[in-house]
Formats: sequence, C-alpha cells, structure tokens
Amino acid sequence: MSSSLASFKLLESETALAFMDVGPIAKGHHARTLVDLPDSEMKDILPFVKKCATAVGAEHWNLLQNNGRNAHQEVDHVHFHMIPKPVPASDRSVGLGIDWPSQGMKMDEIKTVYEQLKAKIDKE
Amino acid sequence: MSSSLASFKLLESETALAFMDVGPIAKGHHARTLVDLPDSEMKDILPFVKKCATAVGAEHWNLLQNNGRNAHQEVDHVHFHMIPKPVPASDRSVGLGIDWPSQGMKMDEIKTVYEQLKAKIDKE
Repeated sequence: MSSSLASFKLLESETALAFMDVGPIAKGHHARTLVDLPDSEMKDILPFVKKCATAVGAEHWNLLQNNGRNAHQEVDHVHFHMIPKPVPASDRSVGLGIDWPSQGMKMDEIKTVYEQLKAKIDKE
Repeated sequence: MSSSLASFKLLESETALAFMDVGPIAKGHHARTLVDLPDSEMKDILPFVKKCATAVGAEHWNLLQNNGRNAHQEVDHVHFHMIPKPVPASDRSVGLGIDWPSQGMKMDEIKTVYEQLKAKIDKE
C-alpha cells in the first residue's frame, strides 16, 4: 500500500479498506475482479460503503464497481466507487453520468437466457 | 414479491435475492437505499453477484447500485445491477455508458474533506 493512499484511509479491516480517492493508487496484488475475490473477503465491503456514505451524508449517490477494461476498470484490484450525485440525473457536470441502452429483448429471449443461467448457477 | 419476478429467480437466501431483470418489478417494502440496509442483511449480496457474473461468463462488466432519484434509482428497494460490457468502453450502444467528470479538486481541498469524513466515521 502506498503511503499517499494510507494517509487517506477511512476504514480498514483484514479484508477491506476504505479510502478517499486522490488519483492513481498503488497496484493491487490480490483479486483483480469481483469474481476473483473469495466470498470470505467480501463481508466488510458493503458495511464500509454504508459507513462512508453515511459520513458523506449524500442523499443521492451511486455505487460503481468495474470489472475489465471495457467496463472502465483502470486499476487491477477489486475496488468500489462511492460517487455522490447532488444534482439531477440529467446534469452530466457532477457525479456519475449513466447511459444504459435497452437491448429490446423479447420476453421469450429473456426466458431462454434465464434458463441457461439458472442451470449454470444450480450446478455450481 | 410478484410472481413474474419470482419466475426469473436465480438465487435466494433469507436476506438477498438474485433475479433476471425483466423490466419493472414489485415495489419493495424494506430498505430503500444501501444506507437503510442493516449490515446483517448485506452478507449474501456480493457472493450472489459473483455467482451470477460467473454464470453469465462476462469478462467485462459493471456492478451498479443507485441510491436516490438523482442517481437513477427508479425502484425504491435496494438492488444491484450486474451489467455485462462485451464491447469497448467507448461504444455506448451496449452495456453501461459512463461519464465521470473530474471536479479538479486540489490536494489541500481533498485533505480537508478527508479529515471531516474521518472524524465523522471515527465517531460512529
């Protein structure tokens, strides 16, 4: 962990760390994406996010976790962004701006994908 | 829980439910935002997300959780979106498109905000 990162530490446990984002951070040496993270190391993440969001006092905010370059992951270590959105959703100048194009799938297509996923999950 | 939602159920525990998004879902009757959710009800969420992402097999994907209308929360019950991004980040036609304007804060401003947050968190 770099010292500049450590100096902005908000919360820390054996498996999770919450800090203030001050730009580029040290490269991680553990799990790259959420899929690589053992379940046992997930337990403090959302309680930490909740504590940080409560301290920030934001009424409107996004929690964003990116996996892979296409999805804007720029640091190869699992991390979550807590992003306040104090302005209306249509205002792109502050906080997260989101585009989420519907793929217009038909219900029977959704059902087919659902059945494939359900079968995979049940086998795990 | 509406029956149409239940029919696309992927995973379920006492505190969490993973399902395939098929459009508008039943209004929730529990926590509205992540801040309203007791820590004890958070434990299955990320393991469920991991299972779903593994089943989908997406290499690139975003996890998004919205709190408040400004932040695009449209259903008043805590929920997480697992959104595959099979195309490059610059391609806005599929998956999540993200704008994240830097506010260009100076290091001493960040440090001031950090110190306020740290003090609040330490008091909790």
